[in-house]
Amino acid sequence: MSRALVADLYELNMAASYLRRDMIAPATFSLFVRNLPKGWGFLVACGLERCLEFLEELRFEPEDLEYLGRELRFTDDDLEAFSRLRFTGRVRAVPEGRVVFAEEPLLEVTAPLPEAQLVETYLLNQVTYQSAVASKAARCRLAAPEASLVDFSLRRVHGSEAGLGVARATAMVGFTGTSNVEAARIFGLRAAGTMAHSYVEAFPSEIEAFQAFAEDFPDRVVLLVDTYDTEQGVSKAIEVAQQVERAGHRISAIRLDSGDLAVLATKARAMLDEVGLTEVQIFASGGLDEHALAELTAAGAPIDAYGVGTKVGVAADSPALDSVYKLVEYDGRAVSKLSTAKVTLPGPKQVWRRAGMAGDVIGLASEDGPGEAEPLLVEVLRDGRRTVTDGLSEAGRRFDAELAVLPDDLRSLAPKPQMVERTPALEQLAAEVAEEIRRRELG
Amino acid sequence: MSRALVADLYELNMAASYLRRDMIAPATFSLFVRNLPKGWGFLVACGLERCLEFLEELRFEPEDLEYLGRELRFTDDDLEAFSRLRFTGRVRAVPEGRVVFAEEPLLEVTAPLPEAQLVETYLLNQVTYQSAVASKAARCRLAAPEASLVDFSLRRVHGSEAGLGVARATAMVGFTGTSNVEAARIFGLRAAGTMAHSYVEAFPSEIEAFQAFAEDFPDRVVLLVDTYDTEQGVSKAIEVAQQVERAGHRISAIRLDSGDLAVLATKARAMLDEVGLTEVQIFASGGLDEHALAELTAAGAPIDAYGVGTKVGVAADSPALDSVYKLVEYDGRAVSKLSTAKVTLPGPKQVWRRAGMAGDVIGLASEDGPGEAEPLLVEVLRDGRRTVTDGLSEAGRRFDAELAVLPDDLRSLAPKPQMVERTPALEQLAAEVAEEIRRRELG
Repeated sequence: MSRALVADLYELNMAASYLRRDMIAPATFSLFVRNLPKGWGFLVACGLERCLEFLEELRFEPEDLEYLGRELRFTDDDLEAFSRLRFTGRVRAVPEGRVVFAEEPLLEVTAPLPEAQLVETYLLNQVTYQSAVASKAARCRLAAPEASLVDFSLRRVHGSEAGLGVARATAMVGFTGTSNVEAARIFGLRAAGTMAHSYVEAFPSEIEAFQAFAEDFPDRVVLLVDTYDTEQGVSKAIEVAQQVERAGHRISAIRLDSGDLAVLATKARAMLDEVGLTEVQIFASGGLDEHALAELTAAGAPIDAYGVGTKVGVAADSPALDSVYKLVEYDGRAVSKLSTAKVTLPGPKQVWRRAGMAGDVIGLASEDGPGEAEPLLVEVLRDGRRTVTDGLSEAGRRFDAELAVLPDDLRSLAPKPQMVERTPALEQLAAEVAEEIRRRELG
Repeated sequence: MSRALVADLYELNMAASYLRRDMIAPATFSLFVRNLPKGWGFLVACGLERCLEFLEELRFEPEDLEYLGRELRFTDDDLEAFSRLRFTGRVRAVPEGRVVFAEEPLLEVTAPLPEAQLVETYLLNQVTYQSAVASKAARCRLAAPEASLVDFSLRRVHGSEAGLGVARATAMVGFTGTSNVEAARIFGLRAAGTMAHSYVEAFPSEIEAFQAFAEDFPDRVVLLVDTYDTEQGVSKAIEVAQQVERAGHRISAIRLDSGDLAVLATKARAMLDEVGLTEVQIFASGGLDEHALAELTAAGAPIDAYGVGTKVGVAADSPALDSVYKLVEYDGRAVSKLSTAKVTLPGPKQVWRRAGMAGDVIGLASEDGPGEAEPLLVEVLRDGRRTVTDGLSEAGRRFDAELAVLPDDLRSLAPKPQMVERTPALEQLAAEVAEEIRRRELG
């Protein structure tokens, strides 16, 4: 796949037009989410890593140019200009793993206008789904703070690339493993997996399947007990666990994948404890999301770990965020849009966060900001090269730090909308730009 | 990315266990959707092409094996067996572009058990999201049968691979273009694109932006008129259209991206017609889905083409289907699952469709099926090699043929659930297998 062509055609049209007209002064675009998904109190920034990789490597390959000339009728001059194009600009961004709110820039790109425009589609594409999934997964952690959570989503996410993104995003917010082997390999995560119902069915009987699995993988035995009847499945798992104990091993867990998980887990825990198998954990899965986890937590279900799949992997209640990439300044001139319900705020920005997450302030990047507040946007790329080396583990530590200070009202799964203040200078610039546009365009 | 490792760990665990135990008799797995998304009357089969590619190419590379041995502690014998593993089986499938209902197999895999098990994750991953998007896009065609629909989703779908899948799925059901340049290149689609608000903002004034664009791309001028004020934007577009006409060219369309599209389109149409610009089309976009399209169609909005983006690209109301891949036969023995609310039907199956889509019948593959009915599942791969060459255009023709005979009650966006019959032989086998399991397991 050509990465440079992972773009909407209009980016190429606009870039070509700018290049022809020598409109190559610096432009700043701001990537932000206009409104949070219903019921979500915050977002977790994710996806920057892929964006920076993309920006560092951006170039049109000869076969890209050939296609653009032959099929899309870009001129030879356009193609020549595209062939020389690299991303030479600067990016300021909220580091991955940090909590952000609506309207707060996740990143700002400043570069010659054609470059800054061209990269819009890819940056939105990566940040949008990765931040949606990281945020949804973070809600799962809030819902089940004591349990171990494992990413089980690969089978129903939107492609294998999405599978990698989801495994990484969930790991960033503290999931302890993923079923996705390729993601585990690439990101150095713990690969986790048990057995399917098909395994049980392929053997002449359930207990023979359990015995075979315990024999084949003595150090990672998780027995799926609900193929036929959960309670009887637990009894058979106990029988096998006792056989295994006599041979000096121990099964890790049983897994419940259907039915009333709170009731079944309580029953299974009692059955296991009764015969002294107190160390055997209970693992649950099956259509779980943060709401299901919260109910199970509230019910005191004795579940040690959850396999969380589809609903988190596709961010089911908000599979896309209301993300945009908006021009806020060109050639020193602040710009904005006035159209119905989609007004944008002009100018390069900064977000300041008061200690203890006690309220954020959005203002102009040129301002000093309030005292005792931390700026969220930091430089991550300059002159087309990364200025920070950062990895998944740093991002994970940042998220843990955010989680530690997250105010109580944001820990709820249905929080009140958070108000983000704007500085007077930003409000004033917005008013001035709007007034200037009205005078000029709507005269 | 290693394709063989795009799998849940449990597939590898199970496959290794089967290989150690010489459990390599033929197994049949059935991939189907248990329940349709709320309000959807049918699904459109999509994703098979990538599955067949995957099956033909399946193999573990040396670096995959190295990882599996080092990190996941598979034994040397396991790795040796994996290194020799290829997909040698058979696939029967509903061809892409055909309409299917809940419980109907989209594909059935018959292969030695380890092979058939290993491919589960990838097949589900591809078929699930591609069929969800194709179905959602098909609903858009039902909602706006006369309009041209263009895929605008790339910026908010789940990665660049998903962008390709979405462009292909939407093209299959009759979208006339995509904004995704790479998808247009790979699949030979029409790349479509206009300008962003940023283009208008980067120029000193809106009319200068329109003039520049018309000059730079005289054969594909679509002017976005809602950056500041839609009505005044239309006036400026008309001014530019008239300048362009005097130079012997013609603008293609204006584009509305916000506000009350029915009202604004009606107003814009009148303004254009009044000055004789009857050929200039109206293109609309902005958060559209099948319901918005249906409302605009019902309101008689004079809109010629729609850019349909995020909500279709992520299948917003059902970003995942309730898809499963279930073992139905092993070594000649029909199997099924009995656990709570997730009972499966045993045995390899066929689906027969009565003429005029007058009801489907699911039965056993070994049955003759009802008279005057067409079998939907056809062989597409045998001995690990494709037996049909098929492409996107054939799939598109199949969808058009389905659409032409789609019964009225399925054309509604909120149809009654379609009942799919089961043959007596299937019901009988299901009862027998359930009885046998109860006797054996639940004693």
